[in-house]
Amino acid sequence: MENDKMKIAILGAGAIGSLFGAYLSRKNDVIFIGRKEHVDKINSRGLIVEGIESFVVKGNGYIEYPGGADIIFLTVKSYDTRNAMEGIKGILNNELIVSLQNGIGNVEIISEYTENVIGAITTEASTFVSPGVIRYTGKGITKVGEIGKKNREKAVKVVSLINESGFKAEYTERIVDEIWIKAALNSCINPLTAILEIRNGDLLEENLLPIIDCLIDENGRVLRELNIDINLRDILFDVIRKTGENYSSMLQDIMHKKRTEIDQITGKIIEYASRHNIEMPCSKTLYFMMKEKERIVQLK
Amino acid sequence: MENDKMKIAILGAGAIGSLFGAYLSRKNDVIFIGRKEHVDKINSRGLIVEGIESFVVKGNGYIEYPGGADIIFLTVKSYDTRNAMEGIKGILNNELIVSLQNGIGNVEIISEYTENVIGAITTEASTFVSPGVIRYTGKGITKVGEIGKKNREKAVKVVSLINESGFKAEYTERIVDEIWIKAALNSCINPLTAILEIRNGDLLEENLLPIIDCLIDENGRVLRELNIDINLRDILFDVIRKTGENYSSMLQDIMHKKRTEIDQITGKIIEYASRHNIEMPCSKTLYFMMKEKERIVQLK
Repeated sequence: MENDKMKIAILGAGAIGSLFGAYLSRKNDVIFIGRKEHVDKINSRGLIVEGIESFVVKGNGYIEYPGGADIIFLTVKSYDTRNAMEGIKGILNNELIVSLQNGIGNVEIISEYTENVIGAITTEASTFVSPGVIRYTGKGITKVGEIGKKNREKAVKVVSLINESGFKAEYTERIVDEIWIKAALNSCINPLTAILEIRNGDLLEENLLPIIDCLIDENGRVLRELNIDINLRDILFDVIRKTGENYSSMLQDIMHKKRTEIDQITGKIIEYASRHNIEMPCSKTLYFMMKEKERIVQLK
Repeated sequence: MENDKMKIAILGAGAIGSLFGAYLSRKNDVIFIGRKEHVDKINSRGLIVEGIESFVVKGNGYIEYPGGADIIFLTVKSYDTRNAMEGIKGILNNELIVSLQNGIGNVEIISEYTENVIGAITTEASTFVSPGVIRYTGKGITKVGEIGKKNREKAVKVVSLINESGFKAEYTERIVDEIWIKAALNSCINPLTAILEIRNGDLLEENLLPIIDCLIDENGRVLRELNIDINLRDILFDVIRKTGENYSSMLQDIMHKKRTEIDQITGKIIEYASRHNIEMPCSKTLYFMMKEKERIVQLK
């Protein structure tokens, strides 16, 4: 990587991928790979960003990765990670792949295809409005780090790249821990909000606090087993308050009658807990209700 | 009580009360006490029963109990039991009160007002269609028994009365156990169906079976603590299959934006479990979600 303009591909240009692509395109050449209706609009009238900032980005959209990027921001849903890697493995040419995704297991899957993997976790928030239009709904911070012992320098480089584009980013030595923490937070927020179809801030309703307590307890034990020493409760309530008006990603998926990331978030945490004899009855109840809710809306 | 025509009051003429009133009125003088719109229609054009059988009953509707009945079938929601008893205590004149209700604690409350209490549990099913119209959706059986050592003869009499009216009824020595069993079954079926807004039969979906297992386990331990020796699993799956097309009473309440009986069903079971150190994480998760769902729909 050099210090000048990067060729960046956003592989999975949905709400969050398109948002990052929009900001990264200020200093770099960005291509968006996504669904046909979305990239058609990007090609014909540009990508429209509304919300916290409003602007239009002239972008190049593709429905398949054409090759030739320096960096690929992988922003597909985590259940599509393997598909995405299978789709590009034939034309990969030493691209750095930045997994900017939710859920457990993505960097591990990508590592099966390339050594050039960077992990990233963001609290920037956006929603997909309509093809070609996204809404930037909440400022956040992006943490970036190498997987294993490799690629530290490249991770630091990605941090600069994001910072230069106007977003806040920081390097972390423990990105895998951050991925677990994000998953634990999502596991406390997402299924409950998606099943009840409520905003994040509604989790502060008195009725739900005993459930939140139970989820903090269960997920907290998993994090301790992973030697991740944080105050999950404080962080969780901070996130809930800061994202109070937002619909969680899982609820957005339910609203759009799409598959959710429940298996890669709560499912993976339950799997780990079960291998370490940690009981998770509250999480499991929500997990299975969420699976059924997902099935119901996809049927409709 | 004599063998001939009884004067029967249905106190709380909703779906199930109106159904019993309709059948009981074939051989008895029945008055219906309920909401104004409902009893107005009953007075002007009769009570219309649709579904398994279709007929119209000429009935007398009141918005308050006028006194003078031999038997009162108490069919108000269990959270209204005390209110109902307070409302009639001034004119009670040795009426036999048959609690035909869901949930734990009703016969205990009624016993504070009179010794003439009979407990009853039914699996007859009906829904409220519109004022003056109910739908008989599922045939069932009604179990009747005395509370404490008193009133055995009267309970047997009520059994005859119900049988003579065309419903199936049987006497049980252990009506309080039956009330707990019904509550345990409701606790496995109602919150889950009401939160996900699904029919009873949808509980057989693979995704939900682990939750059902957990609920059977938790409620089963409560029943064993109460020395109630039944195969809850077999009974539950039988009920689910027989009522597969039905909406549970709690879901009907949610659909009508009404308060549910969650506190008198799952709430009471959790309360008992907690006094006996039985853990109920799955039941509690559903309980608190249900409380919040109830709050949300009442807000709407």
